[in-house]
Amino acid sequence: MSRINEKTLRVIGIGPGGPRQITLEAVDAIAATDVFLILDKGDRTAELTAARTRMLDEHARADHRVVVVPDPPRDRDPVDYEAEVRRWHSARVDAIGAALDENLAEGGSAAILVWGDPALYDSTLRITDRLVEQRDDLTVEVIPGVTSASALTAAHGIVAHGVGEPITTTTGRRLATTPDGADLNQIVMLDSALAFRETASPDDVVYWAAYVGTDDQILVSGRVGDVTDEIVAKRAEARERLGWIMDIYLLRKHG
Amino acid sequence: MSRINEKTLRVIGIGPGGPRQITLEAVDAIAATDVFLILDKGDRTAELTAARTRMLDEHARADHRVVVVPDPPRDRDPVDYEAEVRRWHSARVDAIGAALDENLAEGGSAAILVWGDPALYDSTLRITDRLVEQRDDLTVEVIPGVTSASALTAAHGIVAHGVGEPITTTTGRRLATTPDGADLNQIVMLDSALAFRETASPDDVVYWAAYVGTDDQILVSGRVGDVTDEIVAKRAEARERLGWIMDIYLLRKHG
Ligand SMILES: C[S@@+](CC[C@H](N)C(=O)[O-])C[C@H]1O[C@@H](n2cnc3c(N)ncnc32)[C@H](O)[C@@H]1O
Ligand SMILES: C[S@@+](CC[C@H](N)C(=O)[O-])C[C@H]1O[C@@H](n2cnc3c(N)ncnc32)[C@H](O)[C@@H]1O
Repeated sequence: MSRINEKTLRVIGIGPGGPRQITLEAVDAIAATDVFLILDKGDRTAELTAARTRMLDEHARADHRVVVVPDPPRDRDPVDYEAEVRRWHSARVDAIGAALDENLAEGGSAAILVWGDPALYDSTLRITDRLVEQRDDLTVEVIPGVTSASALTAAHGIVAHGVGEPITTTTGRRLATTPDGADLNQIVMLDSALAFRETASPDDVVYWAAYVGTDDQILVSGRVGDVTDEIVAKRAEARERLGWIMDIYLLRKHG
Repeated sequence: MSRINEKTLRVIGIGPGGPRQITLEAVDAIAATDVFLILDKGDRTAELTAARTRMLDEHARADHRVVVVPDPPRDRDPVDYEAEVRRWHSARVDAIGAALDENLAEGGSAAILVWGDPALYDSTLRITDRLVEQRDDLTVEVIPGVTSASALTAAHGIVAHGVGEPITTTTGRRLATTPDGADLNQIVMLDSALAFRETASPDDVVYWAAYVGTDDQILVSGRVGDVTDEIVAKRAEARERLGWIMDIYLLRKHG
């Protein structure tokens, strides 16, 4: 139900990196938006901010505004991981609420551009849930996007699973805790440690991709026993050369 | 490496149903293609064929051609499920190979439009793998698409998992075999039996969607104990009224 003086906050999945990997629906949503909130995480994701800016240059209205909301500081190696995540999310909620109050007229619309799809390892929807709880003038719209998992499998030209099999999508942090039987096909994100080196057997097959969908895309695939060293070396080299890295892989259990 | 007289076969993910849920990259790929192969599965998916036809009307070149490749007959309730799937795939490979030979000039391009993303519960890439093994004149390009899983979570406005948690993506057929510990967040596709009624506890939460992304979209969410009857009833009513159904759900374990 849309109320008078309602504001709209769009959470727009922009796909995994390629400028053409955005949907028409997301392009429409960008063109309909007055104010874009950029959650600035500092130098490390300067390239991601640049990618979002290019999307806006191409698809936003000429009179759109961009508001940078500095990300609150975060402890990346806390004793209590989940408590620190919660604290950090609260601080983000407050910062974004303030940015909406300052920049959005009644009836206006704001948007946050989210890498890939908003449902996958992204905290934006957790923030907007909290905002909607705190205030009654906000409607949230979510636009799905292509995930980095789909970009990974497309780049390798593969189906994510054997016929009819399940897939586990997980993080490097959790990879070692995947139960037996759920490890036939694992898509692993957020893994700067390449945790498969500890969990996979040499005969498993890995499909790895960095910067997938972009001009810097790197692909390696093969038996874990054969290609692990190549992945480690290419990852280190690219990270050094480009100053940042974003990578993902599919681990397929042998047999 | 592109060879002389090479033909290109594009496998294009067109998203989960909405006409604007296709990517710019997929639109570009459609506009670059000479011949579209439609794998016709008969009446049951007439609506899906119609949706693909609308995509072509909107994005294909005026001189594009459409070739309908009738799907070989398939036993939907075989004794040996995997053997029947293999047999059926071979027959499809032969039919598509013949269609390419008849319709594609040297240097030309063909495409198959795939619902959602080609990496998820779709056999097209298994067919093109076999084609590439059999002939040396074919290059396959894969364009990722938005999955029905992303459309489901976007429609409900939710993240697919609790903070940092893994996700299992599976089928109705396999749902009961998900190992303990892999059942925190399950996305279930291809489930005409609503198998969660046998596996979920009343306090688990289900987010169900039918025809997501289309004008017929139906959403139901809540405690399994509270909303199961509503899902069963709405599913049966819609299937009766529209003559077909396509539905998906996320099952979130309680606690
Ligand atoms: C914070 S998560 C966001 C995921 C995103 N919401 C999605 O749908 O793909 C970031 C992780 O996604 C993966 N990722 C995202 N884009 C990628 C890309 N273009 N190439 C490789 N990995 C990518 C990496 O594993 C990275 O650590
Ligand atoms: C053969 S699988 C293809 C999945 C597709 N490749 C994807 O990426 O979503 C078909 C299943 O996908 C799900 N599905 C696809 N499109 C859907 C939609 N628009 N609404 C609900 N479910 C959908 C249903 O579970 C259906 O049984």
